[in-house]
Amino acid sequence: MSDVVIAGIGQTEVGEHWDLGLRDLAYAAIHDAIQDAGGLKPQSLFVGNMLAPNLSRQAHVGALIADYAGLNGIEAVTVEAAGASGGAALRQGYLAVASGFVDVALVVGVEKFTDKVGAGVDEALATASDSDFEAVQGMTPAAQAALLMKRYMHEYEVPADGFAGFALTAHAHGAGNKNAMFRKAIKAEVYAKAEMVSDPLNMFDMAPNADGAAALVLTRRDLLPSSWASPLVKVAGSGSSSDTLALHDRKDMLFFDTAQISAGKALKQAGLSLDGVDFFEYHDAFSIFAALQLEAIGFAVRGSGWKLAADGSIGLKGKIPCATMGGMKARGFPGGAAGVYQAVEAATQLRGQAEACQIAGARFGLIQSLGGPASTTVSHILQRLD
Amino acid sequence: MSDVVIAGIGQTEVGEHWDLGLRDLAYAAIHDAIQDAGGLKPQSLFVGNMLAPNLSRQAHVGALIADYAGLNGIEAVTVEAAGASGGAALRQGYLAVASGFVDVALVVGVEKFTDKVGAGVDEALATASDSDFEAVQGMTPAAQAALLMKRYMHEYEVPADGFAGFALTAHAHGAGNKNAMFRKAIKAEVYAKAEMVSDPLNMFDMAPNADGAAALVLTRRDLLPSSWASPLVKVAGSGSSSDTLALHDRKDMLFFDTAQISAGKALKQAGLSLDGVDFFEYHDAFSIFAALQLEAIGFAVRGSGWKLAADGSIGLKGKIPCATMGGMKARGFPGGAAGVYQAVEAATQLRGQAEACQIAGARFGLIQSLGGPASTTVSHILQRLD
Repeated sequence: MSDVVIAGIGQTEVGEHWDLGLRDLAYAAIHDAIQDAGGLKPQSLFVGNMLAPNLSRQAHVGALIADYAGLNGIEAVTVEAAGASGGAALRQGYLAVASGFVDVALVVGVEKFTDKVGAGVDEALATASDSDFEAVQGMTPAAQAALLMKRYMHEYEVPADGFAGFALTAHAHGAGNKNAMFRKAIKAEVYAKAEMVSDPLNMFDMAPNADGAAALVLTRRDLLPSSWASPLVKVAGSGSSSDTLALHDRKDMLFFDTAQISAGKALKQAGLSLDGVDFFEYHDAFSIFAALQLEAIGFAVRGSGWKLAADGSIGLKGKIPCATMGGMKARGFPGGAAGVYQAVEAATQLRGQAEACQIAGARFGLIQSLGGPASTTVSHILQRLD
Repeated sequence: MSDVVIAGIGQTEVGEHWDLGLRDLAYAAIHDAIQDAGGLKPQSLFVGNMLAPNLSRQAHVGALIADYAGLNGIEAVTVEAAGASGGAALRQGYLAVASGFVDVALVVGVEKFTDKVGAGVDEALATASDSDFEAVQGMTPAAQAALLMKRYMHEYEVPADGFAGFALTAHAHGAGNKNAMFRKAIKAEVYAKAEMVSDPLNMFDMAPNADGAAALVLTRRDLLPSSWASPLVKVAGSGSSSDTLALHDRKDMLFFDTAQISAGKALKQAGLSLDGVDFFEYHDAFSIFAALQLEAIGFAVRGSGWKLAADGSIGLKGKIPCATMGGMKARGFPGGAAGVYQAVEAATQLRGQAEACQIAGARFGLIQSLGGPASTTVSHILQRLD
């Protein structure tokens, strides 16, 4: 099989787009991605979206977006796995192209938080957790993350500001990303003084909900002219895994099994060891998630993931650069689109086009998209081809 | 590539399951399908569901069901294309297995209408249409279908009882299906006296919303022992196509482009002409949809699809048997699960296990799953292997 490559990328700024609807956001990202791919014509559209059925009273987003983008007639479908919807859409697009049934696939992540017409945002986000046993009790995703964080801090004797490094790093990196929601580095005292959301999780331990859309054009290497100008990025590995939605059903809630399993599959397919990964885009919807992913994958031993943030290891020049373009904390959290943003940003890094966020000589990036507290994790390895 | 085959099927009765939740329904169908497949272990789960985010305040249904079925760790994802979600989930499962990345995939359609905790049923169903331009005006899917039907009857001078044959045939066939919601043939006067829902569409021109779950185990032929006992059914062709959500955006609202395009792709892949199709499972959420599908595919010329119902051509011994186990009208309409029910029923036919509903010597079945007024259509050709 010929390599599956990312031939085009596009994205909107992440933020509050009061003047743009779901279809407008998606169109903007698609337009740029197709242009970037030299006008390749997709036969299939895979949309990563989580909240439109609730917030916008709009399901059937696949056909809606295909139509609005002038792509009538093509296959169009929505792929949903809560916050991992973007990663899951990328994986379905990858499988379609790898199978040979589809030559050019468009993968779009889109989420619209502002200007909602349906259910409330907290209510909609809580559909990611177990409705019958968690959400019905009033537990929001932030409260769920706070439970995890509290247990973690107790077990591993983490100081009160132990997680500050995740926010500081994200904001430092986001300062260099023109599509980020927040583009300003913050100081340690900002974290220390941040408003508490659900003790011990404060405002800077969670990513801000935001509107946005990102898009990828996938195809097979042998379908492109050998003269193709822009650097190509290969989808070198892909893995997906699921776990209980409810935390109380886990044997060990402080280990993200699905992060380990799915990253393991992606690495194995890519023929890569962890040492070969040049940067990692984690799913820092909450800082505790980032720490637990670092541990599950093996970048840190259990109980010490937070130390990689505290000691600078996740910085652009650190041992394992993370959230290189601001992550969810500073770039913003566009729900089911987040996983596609990760892929677009990783491709930007691998092409060497990340400007102030650039990691020198990056060849392999690992991206990980989570639904709930890693109830779903989808992992991909992206590789620069020369 | 080795043939992708259906190695196991399972389903619940369709109806009002007040005592069963989403996960219970899905589990029942999965249990039966895996048992039918001799205990094959799936690596991936593709769930077709449309309404859980609204009616049950539950997204992330893939991981939820994988966990409840004791399949923790496997890939699990929800595939959504409104009413075509079931067909779309089948297609994603098919691509995953055909690609070689997944050896055994589980495809589950599940929908839970009763005992809702979220939005109203009409409001939830209307998320299939264009929220900004149709649903916001109060147009429900039934009202939308009524507009189509009225225009059709005017254009083609169809008598008031012109569509009765669809309901009569469905109920006659459903009488032989022990999983159908309604298992009693009806007389012509029942249709004639039926309560009007949205003129000219009456209670018998639309399928009843109902709870249900259906499941398929897909694998490749060469992974099964040659001694495999039950007749195997091959997925011989697959196609999917999208169109505008809003009717007012169509050039010609009385022709279902996507039904033509997707069926054409599936037939071409199967190397089959229309003459070779032994039966057709259409998406008769509304009788007008059935007529328009028959015309788009080419079973009838434009304006005459309804005549195939009126003259007995769609009966079990007719020219092109349709809704062979009751269709959506009599088996019931379990939303995003409907497309998987079609596949389970078609496989039952092709195995020769359809009992009173059996079509003698059936070798090729065409199934078609629609989202909205064919805003999405997913078509598959299933083939009996001997």
